[in-house]
Amino acid sequence: MAPLAPRSGDAIFASVERVNAELFTLTYGAIVRQLLTDLEEVEEVNKQLEQMGYNIGIRLIDEFLAKSNVSRCTDFKETAEVIAKVGFKMFLGVTASVSNWDADGTCCSIILEDNPLVDFVELPDTCQGLYYCNVLSGVIRGALEMVSMKTEVTWVRDMLRGDDAFELQVKLLKQVPEEYPYKDDE
Amino acid sequence: MAPLAPRSGDAIFASVERVNAELFTLTYGAIVRQLLTDLEEVEEVNKQLEQMGYNIGIRLIDEFLAKSNVSRCTDFKETAEVIAKVGFKMFLGVTASVSNWDADGTCCSIILEDNPLVDFVELPDTCQGLYYCNVLSGVIRGALEMVSMKTEVTWVRDMLRGDDAFELQVKLLKQVPEEYPYKDDE
Repeated sequence: MAPLAPRSGDAIFASVERVNAELFTLTYGAIVRQLLTDLEEVEEVNKQLEQMGYNIGIRLIDEFLAKSNVSRCTDFKETAEVIAKVGFKMFLGVTASVSNWDADGTCCSIILEDNPLVDFVELPDTCQGLYYCNVLSGVIRGALEMVSMKTEVTWVRDMLRGDDAFELQVKLLKQVPEEYPYKDDE
Repeated sequence: MAPLAPRSGDAIFASVERVNAELFTLTYGAIVRQLLTDLEEVEEVNKQLEQMGYNIGIRLIDEFLAKSNVSRCTDFKETAEVIAKVGFKMFLGVTASVSNWDADGTCCSIILEDNPLVDFVELPDTCQGLYYCNVLSGVIRGALEMVSMKTEVTWVRDMLRGDDAFELQVKLLKQVPEEYPYKDDE
């Protein structure tokens, strides 16, 4: 069977089941609030949000591969573009851009100007140091680990801290040159 | 200005911003898992999920009133129908039905056959007693409290416990005969 053509983020987003973005935003806010109450230390909350994201990412990658018809990316550059253009669109309904590549193509930034996680969110002074959207770092790390890329994902800019965009730096630490456990035509 | 006609749940759902349902499902799952880890007692988790839902509901009602053009419902019967037909559609993309009214019209069931919160969810034996979707009870209680109806919302059937549907009993405890704080034409 001929492989299917990859689908655009818009086309996928239009075809998948969706829920109201405000419900999602408020639900995510409830998690963050709960963690702040339970864990007290902002640093611990950052870690926990990242871990939650990781757990989500290792499952979300299946839906991504199933719905997007994206097959193996040729390199990390293509992977980053696919995350930004297809992944963010497919799951959050927004488009991200990729920039700030380093010379050897193993580190770049994914930049978000629109981010449904933070609608109506303002951080109180007691939450300085919180990476409110840290679940996103975890999702990217978890999803990439499932396709054999070990990465480190950190925030460079955060609109809740007064920056003009959300910027996530994604650094490829190690790429396991592994074959997919299945063949394309199976 | 002439009042706008109420909009159908479908029309509203089509027009609001949305996110991928699987992302929402996994995010909600992450909350429940976190609470189970932190609180240990299933009964405490049920309470906390309900409280989270309450906090979401008291805010979600604003979006609901703003987007739906629903104005004051004439009675609790109409209110229940609007929750089931417009509210669930608008936020979760599913339709619920209302039945099992008591004689004086103050207690009914909202029945859900499709529930995006539980896609792929199976409860381990250690979680017997958990009302996994208890956030929904809280949302309804919180939202109704904001329109002057004190209610008690409890689960009658739960598909994760082997029932054939999700059934929430909504009991009107007290209706404060209060005017809206604003006039319709303001």
